[in-house]
Amino acid sequence: MPIERVSASYYRVPLEPSGDAGHGLLDTEELILVEIDADGLTGHGYAYTIGRGGRAIQALIERDLALLLIGQDATDVEALWRRLWNGLLYVGRGGLVAFAVAALDIALWDLRGLRLQQPLWQVAGGVRRTIPAYGSGVDLPKPLDQLLTQVEGFLTRGFSAVKVKVGRPDPEDDRARIAAVRSLIGDGATLMIDANMGWTYDQAVERSRLLEPYRLFWLEEPLRPEDVAGHRLLASAIPTPIAVGESLHSVDEFRRYIDDRAAAVVQIDVVTNGGITPALEILRLADGAGLSTSSHYTDELSAHVLCASASPIFVEKHAFALDPYLEEPQVVTNGTVTPTDRPGTGLRFNRDALERVAL
Amino acid sequence: MPIERVSASYYRVPLEPSGDAGHGLLDTEELILVEIDADGLTGHGYAYTIGRGGRAIQALIERDLALLLIGQDATDVEALWRRLWNGLLYVGRGGLVAFAVAALDIALWDLRGLRLQQPLWQVAGGVRRTIPAYGSGVDLPKPLDQLLTQVEGFLTRGFSAVKVKVGRPDPEDDRARIAAVRSLIGDGATLMIDANMGWTYDQAVERSRLLEPYRLFWLEEPLRPEDVAGHRLLASAIPTPIAVGESLHSVDEFRRYIDDRAAAVVQIDVVTNGGITPALEILRLADGAGLSTSSHYTDELSAHVLCASASPIFVEKHAFALDPYLEEPQVVTNGTVTPTDRPGTGLRFNRDALERVAL
Repeated sequence: MPIERVSASYYRVPLEPSGDAGHGLLDTEELILVEIDADGLTGHGYAYTIGRGGRAIQALIERDLALLLIGQDATDVEALWRRLWNGLLYVGRGGLVAFAVAALDIALWDLRGLRLQQPLWQVAGGVRRTIPAYGSGVDLPKPLDQLLTQVEGFLTRGFSAVKVKVGRPDPEDDRARIAAVRSLIGDGATLMIDANMGWTYDQAVERSRLLEPYRLFWLEEPLRPEDVAGHRLLASAIPTPIAVGESLHSVDEFRRYIDDRAAAVVQIDVVTNGGITPALEILRLADGAGLSTSSHYTDELSAHVLCASASPIFVEKHAFALDPYLEEPQVVTNGTVTPTDRPGTGLRFNRDALERVAL
Repeated sequence: MPIERVSASYYRVPLEPSGDAGHGLLDTEELILVEIDADGLTGHGYAYTIGRGGRAIQALIERDLALLLIGQDATDVEALWRRLWNGLLYVGRGGLVAFAVAALDIALWDLRGLRLQQPLWQVAGGVRRTIPAYGSGVDLPKPLDQLLTQVEGFLTRGFSAVKVKVGRPDPEDDRARIAAVRSLIGDGATLMIDANMGWTYDQAVERSRLLEPYRLFWLEEPLRPEDVAGHRLLASAIPTPIAVGESLHSVDEFRRYIDDRAAAVVQIDVVTNGGITPALEILRLADGAGLSTSSHYTDELSAHVLCASASPIFVEKHAFALDPYLEEPQVVTNGTVTPTDRPGTGLRFNRDALERVAL
C-alpha cells in the first residue's frame, strides 16, 4: 500500500475573541488539513494552532515530512510515526514538529481504518464506549454575566459537567466567578477549573484553597509545564486533583508526570501530543499508573482514542468547536459522546465552509 | 530604537557526506540568515539545521515572529526574547521554535553591540578570553584511513585536542578506531568521543568501559536526551565525564541535567539552545553548579559567549565549518580561539558565496 501523495492546506479562521491566563487574547485559529493517498484511498488528518505557527507546520509537511512518506508502505503506521519523528529529531523531540507529525499520523490512522473497513476506535484496539462530556469555556476576559450565559448554554445542551477559566489578577474575582458558576449549575453538577499555566506555585496553593470550597473536580495546568516537581508538590498540598496534557508534546514529557504522580488526570490531545500513535502510548502509561484519562480539544478524535483507555472519565467539548467546518459535527446525547461507526476517523472538513470564513 | 524591518533568507548548502550514530547520513545543511533593521543599523543572525526544518524556521520568522518585533524597541533584548518565546508558547517551549527565536536573538545581540560600539563578548558581560579549541570530526562512516587523515589534519592545524564519533554496530570497530586515533595523536593530546544518542544504557556502560583505557576526556551524548536519569546513573557508573547540550532546546531542559548533576560538561549552542539570551542563563546555571562549560558548533559566536562563563574549557571547531561562506572566518592560533573585537558579533555571511553553492 505505497503512499502516492501527501498534501497540506492552510486555513486561518476567526474565533469569537476571548482568552485565558496563559495565552492571552485568542481570536484566531489556524487549521492545517492534510491528505494522504495510497492504493485508491485517501486518509484525512489535521493540526490546529491558536493563531501562530501554522505556516511552519505546513512547511514541515510539504518540505520535509512528505518526502519521508512518499513511496513508503502506509500500513505500518507505528513505523512511519517513528520515521517522521526521527527524521526531524535534530529540530524536533516535541514542540512544533509534534503538531506536523500529528496531522500526518491522524491521516495514516484514518487510512488504516478505511483499508480495514473499521472505525478508529476499533483499529486503535478499543471497545466502543459512551463517554461523559463536559462543556468547556474559554472565558477569562468575559464579564460575569457573559460567563454565566456560556455556562447556561452548556446546561441547555445537556452537559452536567462544565469547565471555566481562572487566573484573573484579583483572587477575589476568581472566587466570585466560581461561586456564581457553582450556584448556577447546582450541587449535583461537576465543575472543573483551568489556570492555563498562569500561576506561580504560591499563587496556585492560595487560589486553589480559596476555590476548593466550591467543590472542584480538577484543577488544570496550574503551573508551567516544565515544572513537574512543582506539580507533584502541589498535588500533595491541595485536595483538588491536578490535570495536565495539552502543553506536553511527547510521550517522554507525559512519562515524567505519570512516573512522578505529578498529575491525577492525564489529558490527551492527538494534535499537540504528536498524533494518535503517541496518544495511545500515553493512555497505556496512564492506565498502568492507575491515573484518570480525559482529553483536550480534538473532541471528535478523542471520543475514538479514549475508547482504548481502561476507564476514560471525560471528553472535552471545547468552546472553539469545529462544528461549522465539519461535514458531520459530533453529536452530544444526554451530555455524552460516542465515536462514529464509519470506517476511519469519520472526520471530514467542509472546505467550502472553511474558505468562506478564511482570513 | 524601533525595529523597522525583519527579513529571513534560506540557503541549502551541500556538506561532504558523512554521519553519526544518531542522525544517520549528513549531506546537507540549511542556513536561515536574518537581518533586523533599527535606527540605521542592521543586526545579523542565523540558524542552521542538518538538512530538515529550515523552511519551517523561515516561515516562523516571516509569518509569526517578525510581527512580534516590528515597532518594538530593539534595546531590551531579554524582554524581546521573552516576547518571542511566549508568543509561540502553544507550539513551542523548545524544539523548532527555539531555532527560529535564536536567529532573531542573535541579530538583536548584534544590534546591541553595534549600538554600543562594543563586541559581543563585552555586551554579554564577559572578559575577553583566549580559549582552547578542539578539532571535531563527523566521521562515523569513514574508513579508518580517512578517519586518521581527518585527525592528522586537526593536528596540522595546531589542535592538541580532537573529538571523533563512536557508535559503530560492532564494539570492536569502535575500539580499534579509538586505539588508532590515540596512537596517532600521542599520549599528550586530549581525546573526546561522541555517541550522538546512539546507545542504550547497557551499551553505553559496555562501550565506555571498552574505550576508557584510551584516556577519554569526555563522552558526549551517550543516551537519548530525554533520559536524564539514565545519564545521571551512567555518570556514577563510568569514570569518563559526560557532555551534553546540542539536543537541549530550552533553559529548562539544561536545568534538569545541571540540577541532577547528570552531565559534567555543559555545551552551549546558541542556535539549538534558543539564542544567546538563554545560553548566557545556561552558563550561569552551569557555573553555579561548578560544571565545566564548552560549546557545540556555532564556533564564532561561542568564542564570544563562553567569555561570560567562569572557566570555559573548550570551543568546538566543527568539521562542518562555515568558513567558505563567511566574510572573515575565525582564526585558530596555536589551537586556541579569541573572539573578534569588532562591534557586535563580527559574523557576516558572504551571500555570493552561499548563492554559488546553494542547492
